[in-house]
Amino acid sequence: MTGLTTIRVDSSRPYDVIIGEGILDNAGKKIADVKNPCKAAIITDSTVRELYADRLAFSLQSAGFDTCLFSFESGEASKNIDTLSDALEFLASRKMTRSDIIIALGGGVVGDLAGFAAAVYLRGIDFVQIPTTLLAAVDSSVGGKTAIDLKNGKNLAGCFYSPVLVLCDCKTLDTLPDEILSDGTAEALKYGVLFDGELFGKIASGKVAGDRESIIARCVDLKRMVVETDEFDRGARQLLNFGHTIGHAIEKCSGFTISHGRGVAVGMAMIAKAAAQKGISEYDCAPRIISALNNCRLPHKTDYTAKQLFEAALLDKKRQSGSITLVLPRRIGECFLKKIPVEELIEYIEAGI
Amino acid sequence: MTGLTTIRVDSSRPYDVIIGEGILDNAGKKIADVKNPCKAAIITDSTVRELYADRLAFSLQSAGFDTCLFSFESGEASKNIDTLSDALEFLASRKMTRSDIIIALGGGVVGDLAGFAAAVYLRGIDFVQIPTTLLAAVDSSVGGKTAIDLKNGKNLAGCFYSPVLVLCDCKTLDTLPDEILSDGTAEALKYGVLFDGELFGKIASGKVAGDRESIIARCVDLKRMVVETDEFDRGARQLLNFGHTIGHAIEKCSGFTISHGRGVAVGMAMIAKAAAQKGISEYDCAPRIISALNNCRLPHKTDYTAKQLFEAALLDKKRQSGSITLVLPRRIGECFLKKIPVEELIEYIEAGI
Repeated sequence: MTGLTTIRVDSSRPYDVIIGEGILDNAGKKIADVKNPCKAAIITDSTVRELYADRLAFSLQSAGFDTCLFSFESGEASKNIDTLSDALEFLASRKMTRSDIIIALGGGVVGDLAGFAAAVYLRGIDFVQIPTTLLAAVDSSVGGKTAIDLKNGKNLAGCFYSPVLVLCDCKTLDTLPDEILSDGTAEALKYGVLFDGELFGKIASGKVAGDRESIIARCVDLKRMVVETDEFDRGARQLLNFGHTIGHAIEKCSGFTISHGRGVAVGMAMIAKAAAQKGISEYDCAPRIISALNNCRLPHKTDYTAKQLFEAALLDKKRQSGSITLVLPRRIGECFLKKIPVEELIEYIEAGI
Repeated sequence: MTGLTTIRVDSSRPYDVIIGEGILDNAGKKIADVKNPCKAAIITDSTVRELYADRLAFSLQSAGFDTCLFSFESGEASKNIDTLSDALEFLASRKMTRSDIIIALGGGVVGDLAGFAAAVYLRGIDFVQIPTTLLAAVDSSVGGKTAIDLKNGKNLAGCFYSPVLVLCDCKTLDTLPDEILSDGTAEALKYGVLFDGELFGKIASGKVAGDRESIIARCVDLKRMVVETDEFDRGARQLLNFGHTIGHAIEKCSGFTISHGRGVAVGMAMIAKAAAQKGISEYDCAPRIISALNNCRLPHKTDYTAKQLFEAALLDKKRQSGSITLVLPRRIGECFLKKIPVEELIEYIEAGI
């Protein structure tokens, strides 16, 4: 285990995010620092189970935890209420109590689902996030949003519920297929467009591998800043939805066969193009985003029609009765929120296509 | 509408409980006081729908709300994750947003399930409780506990999530079958044993009808006091579980054919008998509870064996790894918490039988 970076997130229930290479094999010790040995239920998916579950279980057992494991079929299609139900019944069948702990080992789907299970099982038990994808590392494992998808849309049910600890072992990213790695790159790029031109520049080159620990740490720190300002998503946190209104709509139109990262990539490109057309953003903003997406082998356009995307976007959580809040770029490193009547969204989508 | 009693609950999200006769037909106006007109989804069950849903919808519409209605089959068996899933998909299909509202119209099952749906839909939207049973009025509609049952036990999944308003129309209790009314009487009696000998005396006579508004208000105020001290159930709130450890076990053993109120009634009698045997409580405490239960036509014993009840109680949420916290009566009006090793519970159950 090399040097570790620790970032403290001061939410209503504060917690540390520890980032470094090789931390997985020390997970038991690190978790024992925040939690007395107890029953630990590892929740993971079929892919990550094969790769890392045994090592995690061994590390936990060595630190005195009594482990059990629940895994489900990999993929966004599993992030539904049936899998949640299975996970909850599993926890109950193992007689897990309020003083026990859940460990979410995997990508965004695992973190969101296991976090939700932890939030509602016995009205809340402690959980630890161990993200194993870049997307989960830079985004979904920090900030306390948990969720499942409904038939009617993505992430429509969930809780705000913070983990007690996040352990990010950058070594686990080595086993990621390129496609999944680039999904995470899209979210990392988002932080660059939102807050940090320098970070954007690093990622835009398309060569993140050598620098991944510092990129992850910077993204987590930016997310920490936003989450501390607005834990419950009433204001500033909505900035993190940059690219997500259209991105979610694309995912939904595809029946979730297009991944979250790719949806967000296209969503960022489209909303940047719309901002350019409306004279809101600097002239080079949209082209730079598109060029960065190209370098990162991410898409920047879609075949869905404006009408299809608009219909799909109507269920967006960011919508309030008659209005929706868009995140628009002014320049690389600076974005702002704009509340518009929901009907106007179609104009932005059309301008983006 | 006669004179109303308003009790302010100062939880992390404060809210009023308004108690009075005839308030149902003014629900729209009262809700408009805390919430701008928006979409209002009434969640209710098949029994209450027939009785009160139209009147509530009319009152809401008169106050400018746009109403829709989701109802499910009456009974504890519906308080499961499938009904929750149906409710969430219903809300999504109606494109309910974070600025809309859910109205829970019914007894404890409706309130627990609709409250849970409100807590997790879009990670939380506002909801109003309109209890229509005595049990919901005196207990489950106040305090912010929401839940569903799992196959492995009652209330094993849920959230702490406060309503924005509770409206209790005592007139709605007129339509309650005697059996359901007496279920609520068991919970009201619980407050008497816990905190208030005078309240106990009123209810113990078995004639609550004439005095129900003041009895409900007193129970709500006692619950307010406890909830304000310990909203998230880490300490004093556990007192409210008086009679519930054994009560839940009885419900579970019966496959939930024995109602919550009857389970609690027997649970109170048994734990009082155990306390007497162990020399913990005053000599007349258990006999007075048993006599009150008789007067209220509630049971005070069970046919299940101590072993059956013990097994069922092992999944109790109040259990922590190796221990469980019991609520024991010292005298009518005074109880205390006692943490015991979980194995010792069997002695208390045996002493209670």
